[in-house]
Amino acid sequence: MIFSVQVKVMPLKELLDPQGKAVLGGLTNLDLRSIKDVRIGKNIALQIEAETAEQARAAAEEATKKLLANPVMEYFEIEIS
Amino acid sequence: MIFSVQVKVMPLKELLDPQGKAVLGGLTNLDLRSIKDVRIGKNIALQIEAETAEQARAAAEEATKKLLANPVMEYFEIEIS
Repeated sequence: MIFSVQVKVMPLKELLDPQGKAVLGGLTNLDLRSIKDVRIGKNIALQIEAETAEQARAAAEEATKKLLANPVMEYFEIEIS
Repeated sequence: MIFSVQVKVMPLKELLDPQGKAVLGGLTNLDLRSIKDVRIGKNIALQIEAETAEQARAAAEEATKKLLANPVMEYFEIEIS
């Protein structure tokens, strides 16, 4: 069975996010002043072949720890849909 | 009131996603063969000051259309948490 798994990888809250700061500046220039903060990370959509949702989650977690996220700068969340 | 809004920006399904293909190759090299497809997009976390969730969603949609997503290559989803 194929599971659709979404992995969200975001910069750690303690760290500056220069890309987000740049986009916030752009939004201010466009006069969208109701937006007070922007942080930009990755959204990774995986198609995983597994027998159960737990196996799919374990595969996604292994892939994220080994390749997709850098734990020094990023945290991640896994969601199965 | 401050709303946390997540905007997911993903490459259109009809288009190749070379970054995703490269990551899929990396996962295969790591012997994670249960993962059959990878697509990589952005996850943008916004803090929006608004009176209602509908206003926050409208601001996020305006920002996404004007700056965050390129509709020629990407589609987006907005989620308020």
